[in-house]
Amino acid sequence: MPMDSFNKKALAFMEKTKRSPGFICRKIWKVGRDDPRRAIHALKVGFSLTLVSLLYLMEPLFKGVGQNAIWAVMTVVVVLEFTAGATLCKGLNRGFGTLLAASLAFIFEFIAREYGKVFRAVFIGASIFLIGTSTTFLRFFPKIKKNYDYGVVIFLLTFNLITVSSYRVDDILKLAKGRTYMIGIGSGICILMSLFIFPNWSGEDLHNNTITKIEGLAKSIEACVTEYFNVEEPNSDIDETMEDPIYENYKAVLDSKSTDETLALHASWEPRHSVHCHKFPCQQYVKLGGVLRHFGYGVVALHGSLQTEIRTPISIRLLFKDPCIRLASEVTKALMELSGSIRNRRQCSPENITEQIHQALQDLDTALKSQPRLFLGTNSPYNTPKMLAMLTTTAKQKFEHHLSNMNTDSSSERKPKGVSDQTEKRVLRPTLSKLAITSLEFSEALPIAAFVALLVELVARLDFVIEEVEKLGRVACFKEFKHAGDVVVDVERRMKTEINVSSFATGE
Amino acid sequence: MPMDSFNKKALAFMEKTKRSPGFICRKIWKVGRDDPRRAIHALKVGFSLTLVSLLYLMEPLFKGVGQNAIWAVMTVVVVLEFTAGATLCKGLNRGFGTLLAASLAFIFEFIAREYGKVFRAVFIGASIFLIGTSTTFLRFFPKIKKNYDYGVVIFLLTFNLITVSSYRVDDILKLAKGRTYMIGIGSGICILMSLFIFPNWSGEDLHNNTITKIEGLAKSIEACVTEYFNVEEPNSDIDETMEDPIYENYKAVLDSKSTDETLALHASWEPRHSVHCHKFPCQQYVKLGGVLRHFGYGVVALHGSLQTEIRTPISIRLLFKDPCIRLASEVTKALMELSGSIRNRRQCSPENITEQIHQALQDLDTALKSQPRLFLGTNSPYNTPKMLAMLTTTAKQKFEHHLSNMNTDSSSERKPKGVSDQTEKRVLRPTLSKLAITSLEFSEALPIAAFVALLVELVARLDFVIEEVEKLGRVACFKEFKHAGDVVVDVERRMKTEINVSSFATGE
Repeated sequence: MPMDSFNKKALAFMEKTKRSPGFICRKIWKVGRDDPRRAIHALKVGFSLTLVSLLYLMEPLFKGVGQNAIWAVMTVVVVLEFTAGATLCKGLNRGFGTLLAASLAFIFEFIAREYGKVFRAVFIGASIFLIGTSTTFLRFFPKIKKNYDYGVVIFLLTFNLITVSSYRVDDILKLAKGRTYMIGIGSGICILMSLFIFPNWSGEDLHNNTITKIEGLAKSIEACVTEYFNVEEPNSDIDETMEDPIYENYKAVLDSKSTDETLALHASWEPRHSVHCHKFPCQQYVKLGGVLRHFGYGVVALHGSLQTEIRTPISIRLLFKDPCIRLASEVTKALMELSGSIRNRRQCSPENITEQIHQALQDLDTALKSQPRLFLGTNSPYNTPKMLAMLTTTAKQKFEHHLSNMNTDSSSERKPKGVSDQTEKRVLRPTLSKLAITSLEFSEALPIAAFVALLVELVARLDFVIEEVEKLGRVACFKEFKHAGDVVVDVERRMKTEINVSSFATGE
Repeated sequence: MPMDSFNKKALAFMEKTKRSPGFICRKIWKVGRDDPRRAIHALKVGFSLTLVSLLYLMEPLFKGVGQNAIWAVMTVVVVLEFTAGATLCKGLNRGFGTLLAASLAFIFEFIAREYGKVFRAVFIGASIFLIGTSTTFLRFFPKIKKNYDYGVVIFLLTFNLITVSSYRVDDILKLAKGRTYMIGIGSGICILMSLFIFPNWSGEDLHNNTITKIEGLAKSIEACVTEYFNVEEPNSDIDETMEDPIYENYKAVLDSKSTDETLALHASWEPRHSVHCHKFPCQQYVKLGGVLRHFGYGVVALHGSLQTEIRTPISIRLLFKDPCIRLASEVTKALMELSGSIRNRRQCSPENITEQIHQALQDLDTALKSQPRLFLGTNSPYNTPKMLAMLTTTAKQKFEHHLSNMNTDSSSERKPKGVSDQTEKRVLRPTLSKLAITSLEFSEALPIAAFVALLVELVARLDFVIEEVEKLGRVACFKEFKHAGDVVVDVERRMKTEINVSSFATGE
């Protein structure tokens, strides 16, 4: 029997190995196709490394620089990053760190030079301890951590190397000069490569990310509202295997904080060649990102009301279908308008955007007022019309159906997306099913009221988004708004074109 | 006039300079007091660096190792990180990267050795290009990027250094051996320092962070509900200057994804010396973090209903005050119970937790059913009791008062927290104030219904949190639950003690 299981494992392993070349190829192809700039960057690094090793490989060049050429190779490996901003950030941090450390080390060397060997050793040891401790502590300051962490590490490294070496090497100044030249050559190649040959700009990435996020939110809202008023039961078989498209669309927004901040940090190092403006407004993009996250939490809440156990019967929901869908589509349109204005780098006109929303809100209000009796609980002692009685029975049927399904699929159905996929089958606790019963006995108007309130709340938050986009338009000196027919028509295609343009054309 | 402004500036600058030493001292003190482990870590780094420079400074040691001692210094600077996990992750990545690169470089060297100088140069150049390109491309694979990015960079660095050097240096093997020893010594000191002398464990940090997050959520919910049913108008003067305490409590949860993942990654490298369990369940903590974030979005929505324009009049709110506060306090209690069980590393008992919540939910249900007429709109044609008529007038008064304030403070009042503090005074657009009017005319039952629905939704989400905490208890082999009086009493004090214990006592 153990032999048998061994054979099985061996077979499975062989099968895997056979398939793996194809699998690896597909994987490589996917990573490259997702963002072709990656392949270009890899080629750039290979090319730069080869270029810099010529210093070592070619006789006349090597005669000039000697063993120090190795420092140029080191610099290229460590400094050349994907975007121009990241390269500059690292390169300049490295440069200043090295210079500062070298100056300090020479001052210390100058002080210690006069004394005997033993005193010098003690002096060097003490200064290494002191500088090591204080520099490491400095790295815990949030501001330094964020902007200059790499520079501080390089400072510490260089200081130690020079101080320690100075004890044994006599002409430390010459050594340091040679290395500094080489680091300069390495940095020069990195800057050349990242700024002038197919450059990738962090600022562009930040700009495009912002557009994608706004569009994702717009799509989520539309999908949420459509699904909420969908009469057919969702097909749960399909749901299990693939990611929820609504979640797919807004998830990029929720955890965007660290990405945004890194991109903005790198973008702040990039030289911008705008005609009107002096500086790329990366902080404004970060602010807009914050507002979008806040908006996104509202979308999560809206999405939550699709997944909840307490549901208003479909026939009540249908009464508010049209105004809700209208309002949602107006919000979507507004978001698309905002993303379009950022994409085309023109200022947006909030009046145009909000007028339609205002109209839609009023319609929703009218619809709500025309159905006041719906906000009665089903157990109300008042004269309930026939419809409500019917609704109660459908709700009960649904509830019984729901209970019978409870032990099989409800636990996975209610699972929040993105949390875990392979949850083990758990036994439903009796108290929890009781909870579900209690929830279902709540007034049926509760969930639709919550849904409408969340939708209205989203409109209120949209206000902040509009405000920040407007400010972005002003700070980034976007074109003035013109009344013209340049409304976004084919978003998908334009986006693709834009990405290609940003990655290739800016290299000219 | 310009002279005057120059003088002013100069004065301000002098004032700043005079104050700055004190300011810097306070800042340093604050960074150290926030987490005393930082100061200890800084001292550890200083000590390790001094220790490693002895290789260079002491005659007998230097005779043994020579110039290569510099590589030990370099390793300590680069590898020694704040937590044991981070140090091990970096150290092992560096070690394996170096070994792999050295092996590959020697194979290449072995192939090229037979041929002439020119062929060797071309061969070396080509291999550098090839390895450089493919290695850089490899860094874009998400899995490699996440776990082995540093190792890949070190691989590329070492490969280039050895390959290039081998062209000029004859006995490259001896050179490589000397350096490898030195890197070994450096790594050894780092591992000794991080594992055995006042170690900081990423796993402990992850554990404590999780507890803090759950407690923060609990506090937010309680504060939200209390504020919602607060009869007095909030004092907006105080609000402006300091952060919203509710936001303060849950904000750590919202953006916790990257922190959690980094800590879990580092924790996965830490050797754990548990008696019962083989491995620290860092992935389960990440999962729990995901569920907590999902729960946190619900709290954001609840918080949003405090900040919204549409409000149910206070007298209607008061009708549901008691059951809502009861439910919220049960949810809070449950969360505190969960955090307590994680803190004391014992399994939780969901039956105890959920029973009370069930009771509270039923009370809320009863309260809702006893007031069915409240879910009528105020414009309803039905027989409205006196109370509702009165409510309508209060709502109108409030609305008028609100309108008069609109131009002065509403824009800053509605600002989502954490987005921006120094917003410029903006002119309120007419369309937006119209939006607010429309919102206020909605049925007054809408907001309270939404609030209740969100609260009930939170209970549903609490289920996932309980589930994941239970699973954590099983996976991490926490103690079995025992019925005893060890309920958390003084959370604040215990937490402080725990942090101190984890940072100092584990060093023994």
